[in-house]
Amino acid sequence: MVSSPLYLEDVAIGSKYGSPTCKVGADDIVGFAAEFDPQVFHLDEEGAKETFFGQLVASGWHTASITMRLLVQSDFNPAGGIVGAGVEEIRWVRPLVPGDALTLEITALESIPSKTNPDRGMIRLRVVTLNQRKQTVQVMVPKLVMQRRLEGEALSGNDKTKAAIADPVL
Amino acid sequence: MVSSPLYLEDVAIGSKYGSPTCKVGADDIVGFAAEFDPQVFHLDEEGAKETFFGQLVASGWHTASITMRLLVQSDFNPAGGIVGAGVEEIRWVRPLVPGDALTLEITALESIPSKTNPDRGMIRLRVVTLNQRKQTVQVMVPKLVMQRRLEGEALSGNDKTKAAIADPVL
Repeated sequence: MVSSPLYLEDVAIGSKYGSPTCKVGADDIVGFAAEFDPQVFHLDEEGAKETFFGQLVASGWHTASITMRLLVQSDFNPAGGIVGAGVEEIRWVRPLVPGDALTLEITALESIPSKTNPDRGMIRLRVVTLNQRKQTVQVMVPKLVMQRRLEGEALSGNDKTKAAIADPVL
Repeated sequence: MVSSPLYLEDVAIGSKYGSPTCKVGADDIVGFAAEFDPQVFHLDEEGAKETFFGQLVASGWHTASITMRLLVQSDFNPAGGIVGAGVEEIRWVRPLVPGDALTLEITALESIPSKTNPDRGMIRLRVVTLNQRKQTVQVMVPKLVMQRRLEGEALSGNDKTKAAIADPVL
């Protein structure tokens, strides 16, 4: 998962990136919910049976936050870090339940150089969060701020090699 | 902030709801980031100076998660709880910084009865997260699953009074 920092120009549309896996237990689900989403279907296995979900499920914001950690740990590694401007869409397709193990499929959808700042731009990604049965738990389309290489500052040979390793489409 | 549980029919479009306030310290910001968004601009005051943000700022997912807690604590109180199907948009307009105190402005945008399930529907909300200077930190448009009253099950007089208290537009 070690890769050279990516600039906007390094990311070809359609490029795919992977992430490690994160296993989530009932304690994690209840701990997050107690702090950020204190509702019975996220807090109590017994009480959850009488609710819309019929069982203990994670807060969607817990799924989103774990997805962020996996994105930071993924092989999509922008120079200057992952800086979100916003998210176009989040869909919680299927609940995250105790014992699930999550992993990401990351695809570059669109690259948008800034009209006013030549040193930056935006990238739109599709980030699909899958469970251990390869079922989709969450689909998210974030927009990230990315740095551009300064004009005339060509890639060194070494950087080119690194970029090729980091980006399977190059 | 105590109010009678709301059904889809109780929520008039344009209705506004408020929330309590939540103060956020540097320790909270660093604690969330260590678990879910371990990047230097969310973890280290000194290191953050050299980054895009120029100072320690909260993860956008921390802002979103605090917003969820304030929504649970708000006077928008759906029967059966707050069940998110997804989010159409999140914009992080301004970073959340240590010492900020957040509060919500919640507006009902659209009510969508289900075509297949007469006992439920969706509501679109605009949820604006403001800091203590009334500056917008985050704008979010969530879609929530809401219960409908069963057909022929009219409001009792007592429920009508409660609904009127809960919904300032009725």
